[in-house]
Amino acid sequence: MLTSTPFPKSFASDNHAGVHPAVLAAVLEANTGDAPAYGEDVWTAAMEDAFSTEFGPQATVYPMFNGTGANVVGLGLALRPYDAVICPVTAHINTNECGAAERVLGVKLVTIPTDDGKIFVDDIRGLLSVLGDAHHSQPRVISISQVTECGTCYTADEVAELAEFAHARGLFLHMDGARLANAAAELGCSLRSLTTDAGVDLLSFGGTKNGAMGAEALVVLRPELDAPTPFLRKQGMQLASKMRFVSAQLTALLTDDLWRENAAHANAMAHRLAEGIADLPGVSLRYPVQSNAVFPALPEKVIAELQQRYLFHLWDAAENVVRWVTAFDTSPEHVDTFVADIRLAVQGTAGS
Amino acid sequence: MLTSTPFPKSFASDNHAGVHPAVLAAVLEANTGDAPAYGEDVWTAAMEDAFSTEFGPQATVYPMFNGTGANVVGLGLALRPYDAVICPVTAHINTNECGAAERVLGVKLVTIPTDDGKIFVDDIRGLLSVLGDAHHSQPRVISISQVTECGTCYTADEVAELAEFAHARGLFLHMDGARLANAAAELGCSLRSLTTDAGVDLLSFGGTKNGAMGAEALVVLRPELDAPTPFLRKQGMQLASKMRFVSAQLTALLTDDLWRENAAHANAMAHRLAEGIADLPGVSLRYPVQSNAVFPALPEKVIAELQQRYLFHLWDAAENVVRWVTAFDTSPEHVDTFVADIRLAVQGTAGS
Amino acid sequence: MLTSTPFPKSFASDNHAGVHPAVLAAVLEANTGDAPAYGEDVWTAAMEDAFSTEFGPQATVYPMFNGTGANVVGLGLALRPYDAVICPVTAHINTNECGAAERVLGVKLVTIPTDDGKIFVDDIRGLLSVLGDAHHSQPRVISISQVTECGTCYTADEVAELAEFAHARGLFLHMDGARLANAAAELGCSLRSLTTDAGVDLLSFGGTKNGAMGAEALVVLRPELDAPTPFLRKQGMQLASKMRFVSAQLTALLTDDLWRENAAHANAMAHRLAEGIADLPGVSLRYPVQSNAVFPALPEKVIAELQQRYLFHLWDAAENVVRWVTAFDTSPEHVDTFVADIRLAVQGTAGS
Amino acid sequence: MLTSTPFPKSFASDNHAGVHPAVLAAVLEANTGDAPAYGEDVWTAAMEDAFSTEFGPQATVYPMFNGTGANVVGLGLALRPYDAVICPVTAHINTNECGAAERVLGVKLVTIPTDDGKIFVDDIRGLLSVLGDAHHSQPRVISISQVTECGTCYTADEVAELAEFAHARGLFLHMDGARLANAAAELGCSLRSLTTDAGVDLLSFGGTKNGAMGAEALVVLRPELDAPTPFLRKQGMQLASKMRFVSAQLTALLTDDLWRENAAHANAMAHRLAEGIADLPGVSLRYPVQSNAVFPALPEKVIAELQQRYLFHLWDAAENVVRWVTAFDTSPEHVDTFVADIRLAVQGTAGS
Repeated sequence: MLTSTPFPKSFASDNHAGVHPAVLAAVLEANTGDAPAYGEDVWTAAMEDAFSTEFGPQATVYPMFNGTGANVVGLGLALRPYDAVICPVTAHINTNECGAAERVLGVKLVTIPTDDGKIFVDDIRGLLSVLGDAHHSQPRVISISQVTECGTCYTADEVAELAEFAHARGLFLHMDGARLANAAAELGCSLRSLTTDAGVDLLSFGGTKNGAMGAEALVVLRPELDAPTPFLRKQGMQLASKMRFVSAQLTALLTDDLWRENAAHANAMAHRLAEGIADLPGVSLRYPVQSNAVFPALPEKVIAELQQRYLFHLWDAAENVVRWVTAFDTSPEHVDTFVADIRLAVQGTAGS
Repeated sequence: MLTSTPFPKSFASDNHAGVHPAVLAAVLEANTGDAPAYGEDVWTAAMEDAFSTEFGPQATVYPMFNGTGANVVGLGLALRPYDAVICPVTAHINTNECGAAERVLGVKLVTIPTDDGKIFVDDIRGLLSVLGDAHHSQPRVISISQVTECGTCYTADEVAELAEFAHARGLFLHMDGARLANAAAELGCSLRSLTTDAGVDLLSFGGTKNGAMGAEALVVLRPELDAPTPFLRKQGMQLASKMRFVSAQLTALLTDDLWRENAAHANAMAHRLAEGIADLPGVSLRYPVQSNAVFPALPEKVIAELQQRYLFHLWDAAENVVRWVTAFDTSPEHVDTFVADIRLAVQGTAGS
Repeated sequence: MLTSTPFPKSFASDNHAGVHPAVLAAVLEANTGDAPAYGEDVWTAAMEDAFSTEFGPQATVYPMFNGTGANVVGLGLALRPYDAVICPVTAHINTNECGAAERVLGVKLVTIPTDDGKIFVDDIRGLLSVLGDAHHSQPRVISISQVTECGTCYTADEVAELAEFAHARGLFLHMDGARLANAAAELGCSLRSLTTDAGVDLLSFGGTKNGAMGAEALVVLRPELDAPTPFLRKQGMQLASKMRFVSAQLTALLTDDLWRENAAHANAMAHRLAEGIADLPGVSLRYPVQSNAVFPALPEKVIAELQQRYLFHLWDAAENVVRWVTAFDTSPEHVDTFVADIRLAVQGTAGS
Repeated sequence: MLTSTPFPKSFASDNHAGVHPAVLAAVLEANTGDAPAYGEDVWTAAMEDAFSTEFGPQATVYPMFNGTGANVVGLGLALRPYDAVICPVTAHINTNECGAAERVLGVKLVTIPTDDGKIFVDDIRGLLSVLGDAHHSQPRVISISQVTECGTCYTADEVAELAEFAHARGLFLHMDGARLANAAAELGCSLRSLTTDAGVDLLSFGGTKNGAMGAEALVVLRPELDAPTPFLRKQGMQLASKMRFVSAQLTALLTDDLWRENAAHANAMAHRLAEGIADLPGVSLRYPVQSNAVFPALPEKVIAELQQRYLFHLWDAAENVVRWVTAFDTSPEHVDTFVADIRLAVQGTAGS
């Protein structure tokens, strides 16, 4: 049998984790005889019901293979050929999707500097003076990430303020919710309160990092944008033939609030980790911990020593900031062992 | 528990079938602890070894989510911004991918009429007079499907003739091998003999229709085209984060020639079906049966009656031709029951 | 001083001709002091008035640099990202624009075989069965050329039939009118009767081949498609800064029906040429002469001999068909000399 | 006869000016009989010679219709589908081309904040850490404007430093030279010293703002990038059929250094204007005057009063900065009258 890694529990990403047992069980259960392809099956219908229950009856949902696919197809629903998307410079669509939005949608991304991954109305206002002028790409969508790439969260009020601002000017609000579950768990609120009720128009809903095998979803919350979705999904190479096996994963996450259980646990492990190092000299957090990620600045030698034994990424090489991410299957023991090793490394290098 | 369909075994498509038990077992086995994301895992490494063994050491392989993704990323490796792809008018890339190639690659498809889904050197020669003339898109890739959308197969010699012709003129040969396994099983030859050895440069290898849950692959057989693949895959929204679960499926299909067993069985069922109706009056085959599909012309009333009880698609409404597809899990009993029902329908309508 | 060509009057293309004196005078007259850029000038306003007069009050007009630009921007107004354009396989947008439509618009062209460059409703009907099916590009525009690339013309009734068919199905009719003037002159009707009144939605209006220096126009005849035009023109690299010098050319062509005078003359020269060779043995016309082009099949030796002394293009190398084009400045003497040389060549080679 | 504007000499843009008499004479001279289309004419050959003389024998030149066309086609020569262009946030390609680069090329623009329109190696270094990582668009081209959109100039050494940095890392240097003539005139150097000799790979050469009717050019200074230019020009809708009339304009500008005469004069007028207001209270320059543009901050009331009688644009509404541009045909009297009116307006509002 193949073994996965010589390292202990990875803190590099929540997509290093495997599949939650309930998700896997749902996949197995869906493997019964024939089913129509491309979403005409009963498992997909059940998944659609689950999303309607969660996000409201106007929500339509489309399983997607990955987050880039969900983002590109979703943004595409709102964009005319000459439009721009406004987003923080840290946005995954800007920094980590190899230019898929520009290539596939032909869209300009107009980026806003940010300290913690969040943007606000005051950052955006000045960018709209070009509306109506044919020399300029036309801002059409504001895209935010919830949780942000910095692990921070928007409150429901903050989302609503962006949505109101956008709608008053004929723009739309898109949310890259690869870790929306973590935000809702952290804020103790429903998925709906952060999306539908706050005025989000287009949502990329993340399942994979929350315990699925490979399942994301585009949730269209503004029905008048929805007509082209089946075409853009197919053209965007996101239409699964045996869709039941993707849909079943999503249903499993929405069943009995498994999404919240998984996210809340991952968040709790991040807080435990942050607390475990809070008193260490020379260690400070770049961003507040508001989800399942911790971004500490560490002495360079500590980073080097820890990377010999743990998987995690450098976040800001110039400032010696690293990123640690926890997952649904990170245990308190994983965290405590890691904390102990960090403390040893800090103490060991302190005197050097 | 959800049930899938009120119909008996579907003859509509081989992607109505579920997952082969060996593939599912491989997925389960991969769900052990952490693994690096995006293909840096041991299951992906094992899968790469399996493809090298099958297609030769120069082959590199990239798991893809679906066939459209494999086709678009693969074609993209060979294309400059002003290039065209020559393909039969029946090609899946032309008729069934919602214009993904044009949208994502910006490429022109130059289509060739065909009787049975196949094209030959003589069909192509005249299209190359535009080479070097800046007023015209430049033919750069010849794309064929193996098996074709009509269920027919190219022999290894036929593929080689196209490849030699292409290479002598600076063009490349792409194969949409969504059902390559069925061709190799039908022709009794290796995957390699129909691809690498015949001069194919870029291959979309199909796993889903062969018994996988959702796993296709791009196989780059010409190493000098390979450098951009990781970028085009990411940008093409085909990079799986938890890739091990896709790779494991592909490895399962290549283990102990499961691909051949599944394809040979499906093909045998199609032949059994065709033979079962061969003597029926008013029934004729549009194309020869060379894989797992049968395309009979039937009386219109027979079609209507059968569609009340069986899932299958009309192929040519004007000519009353339908498409019946068998799968790895189509049993002789499924076929025999279907044949009996067809015969009854034909006889029942014959006197009407 | 530079001299242009050692050849006598070119029969290769109407864009080998220079600029009509009235057009040049208009350009000179526009060079008086300052003018606002990008079309906010009085010459552009006058040009807009002239087009309104000619095509009706609902027409809006946008100067374009060349025909490809006019076609791409115009088609773009009607297309969603997943749409297709239906056109004859001979269409300039398909064969002579180096894939600009596919690259810039991401659109699929669905081509129809044609004997003489024209297509009809019966050719199109079968292509619309895919409407509403997300697996397929959605036909959205029918594009025809008037005159066609074969020199033939649609009657107003033929255009209207296509428009009615299109509109009844939610499609639009685009006309590549690079030589619309020649059609109107040949048919003895107004520009409007062949476009606005016949139901054309989007028109590329050709000026350059009709005697301008370099001036085409997009005429939007369906106002609800017009909102994005300024943006698509700018993005499509067709917005002239000193626009007055393009607009003035177009106004000159529309003043005192100069367009008709130029086109009628060119057409007359083509008919004179065709008549001059009508009785020659071994010479036949591929298409009827309905504008300013003649497409004769000639003995190969005759072609070779004539090409030593005259500029013209091979149209169909396999069939020895050539294309001769006349222009506003082709004189009867040019034609008669050419006819005499053709006759000599035919007679000279007849006995060989 | 149409009159152009009720305003005195425009200070809004150098493309409000007309055509220089020598350019117009060249156009007239080219209108003699037939000439082959698409650049196979003797005027284009002469223009090519002129550019070779100016930029060196390895330079190839392609007339373009406008600056956006030149920029898009030029950048396209260096870009793979997954590449990014690094440019200052003020770049015309980023702010004033309606997203043409993203739409037509599918490229990501990575923008750098700038005080005066210029960028330097230290701004770029940190952006290259993503090279080789398939999650990120790959920086491939550094694009600078000479003169910048702020009217400032790079020295030849500054250009060379960027080129060396780029080339050492496999990147290319693109220059948007819409006003390159003004930079060379200001710096007292040749066009070549700022481009070919400084390591520029791709140049958009501006003619229109320098006195042409409508003529820009793409100059390819790195021969190995040149092969696809004819195709990208055609596809990019920038291929003129009657090219001689564009080529003749460019030749006129390069003849007897007319480009320098025009640019030096325009620059001198800008300096005269800046000096004329240098001592005014409440007036300061946002950027140093290094070409034909002045960017003063003025009291809001002064701006309002002046705009009733003069054409010019607001540059920064929040800071009350305006942009005044001079042209080849701006006279000292134009400037002096404008200065007098500005002084009156400042004094008139000073006491209010």
